[in-house]
Amino acid sequence: MTEALPSWNTGTTKSAILDFVARTTKEGGPDFVPPAGRIAVFDNDGTLWCEKPFPIQAGFLFGKIAEQVKADPSLAEKQPWKAVAEGNHAWLGDAITKHYDGDDSDLKLMAAGLLSAYAGDDVEDFAAKADAFLRNSHNSALRRPNLKTAYAPMRELLQYLEDNGFTSFIVSGGGRDFMRPVTRELYGIPPDRVVGTTVALEYRETDGRIALQHSEKLELFNDGPAKVVQIWGRIGARPVFVAGNSNGDLQMMQFATQGVGPSLALLVNHDDEAREIAYTAGAEKVLAEARAQGWIVASVKDDWAQVFVD
Amino acid sequence: MTEALPSWNTGTTKSAILDFVARTTKEGGPDFVPPAGRIAVFDNDGTLWCEKPFPIQAGFLFGKIAEQVKADPSLAEKQPWKAVAEGNHAWLGDAITKHYDGDDSDLKLMAAGLLSAYAGDDVEDFAAKADAFLRNSHNSALRRPNLKTAYAPMRELLQYLEDNGFTSFIVSGGGRDFMRPVTRELYGIPPDRVVGTTVALEYRETDGRIALQHSEKLELFNDGPAKVVQIWGRIGARPVFVAGNSNGDLQMMQFATQGVGPSLALLVNHDDEAREIAYTAGAEKVLAEARAQGWIVASVKDDWAQVFVD
Repeated sequence: MTEALPSWNTGTTKSAILDFVARTTKEGGPDFVPPAGRIAVFDNDGTLWCEKPFPIQAGFLFGKIAEQVKADPSLAEKQPWKAVAEGNHAWLGDAITKHYDGDDSDLKLMAAGLLSAYAGDDVEDFAAKADAFLRNSHNSALRRPNLKTAYAPMRELLQYLEDNGFTSFIVSGGGRDFMRPVTRELYGIPPDRVVGTTVALEYRETDGRIALQHSEKLELFNDGPAKVVQIWGRIGARPVFVAGNSNGDLQMMQFATQGVGPSLALLVNHDDEAREIAYTAGAEKVLAEARAQGWIVASVKDDWAQVFVD
Repeated sequence: MTEALPSWNTGTTKSAILDFVARTTKEGGPDFVPPAGRIAVFDNDGTLWCEKPFPIQAGFLFGKIAEQVKADPSLAEKQPWKAVAEGNHAWLGDAITKHYDGDDSDLKLMAAGLLSAYAGDDVEDFAAKADAFLRNSHNSALRRPNLKTAYAPMRELLQYLEDNGFTSFIVSGGGRDFMRPVTRELYGIPPDRVVGTTVALEYRETDGRIALQHSEKLELFNDGPAKVVQIWGRIGARPVFVAGNSNGDLQMMQFATQGVGPSLALLVNHDDEAREIAYTAGAEKVLAEARAQGWIVASVKDDWAQVFVD
């Protein structure tokens, strides 16, 4: 038998994962979890694929926003069109950072603008656009195709969990319908197991033909407590395995670890400036809680033998 | 090899199902659907289990309502407590019938009262209560345990589809969290593949402990167009197989049959007064559309060799 999780270096992090899976799958053992209870949830941006210098979805939205400015130059006077037109990524990044600090004003401004980008699209047309973007875009800082910024050790972990009877779900702040076209191929996770941020879908019927279209109304920003509510709504069970990387994952990590049986919480810590982009901004609270609760902290630098998928 | 679908009588309905599955799973054939696209959706009340004389969930709610009246007799002066206290099932049944006729006034009155029954319950406590009720309650008219009012031919069909690489979902007007505790055992469908009516869940945190509770606020009545919106939201794909029995299933049957590839819509017609309860009330529109579109209509009387599971 080949060694499990070859992209993970030998050490306490890898051992903790292997030990958890061994204990929870050992029939008759004190920590045995029947397959139906082996539910795992994974954040996506920063946990399964790289979110720096900014989330992949931002490029998808910025491209369309730039088109809007070209068609109507007056838009360049207001946010978020202004920031996109000027290439002011700092404003956009700050909007997210400020959200984590409790100030949603710029995030709402950004969301309102960005969500208008694909309003009116039929759900299947939107899926085709997201699919094409994901397969043809690049991370300029890392000089890699975006789909090759998926983390090899995490993809391996998903496969390892599946091989051991776990069912994994993505529970992401990213757009549900944006991620879905590639999650099966990239992670082995089908669209029905992708939970994310959503715009309201509009139902229309014309002469008996049904159309389902993206509106520009934000339905749910899947972050923090909302992730817990959506986990129950979409999955109907308390997970026993949870992986995240930012403060927006804190509540689902608490929820998964507060059940009656065994559980494992894994926090990815981006501390490797050489092989990817290092940062802790937006992860301060969850890092502190991980230390307080004894959650597993995976160091990109020390625990990952390989960072990105080939 | 044993014959497929033994609870279905030989005839055009059974042949249509077998033919559809054969065509869509024949690699290289013109109607081949890859496993990822083999999505099937099933209504529950009246399609997978019996909904007469009233839906199983009604009993779950009525029992609690009766307790409320006992604790506060003044409640018996107003609906729906009045109807429950007086055993006036006609009022309750009419509320649903009126809804299908476009008049929601009594349904809203009923929902507001009924949803208060389990408000404040932790999601896991609610699941335990639903589970206990489902396993210990009976259908008084049919003199069978409620779980034995599941339809044998439909359960067989779910298994047959799974054996052929389909993934099935329940898309029901019934309560999502009410059905979930038994769907895996009864139908082979895990909780994450149960889509239904929902009350809003309330997130609470006390000293770092997270609680998720049922509120009394109706979040979504999963019926008609809402079923289509939820199919995309929860599944992320257009189904190719759809089964229903009432007007509330019409839109999802249209949606599933309006894709580019092959599809099959199956309508259960309750025309057997001898072995169960016959009715067409609430199914007039969908029966007419089935005839107009050439959808498959399964006659309980003629197509089902056995009605209920043993």
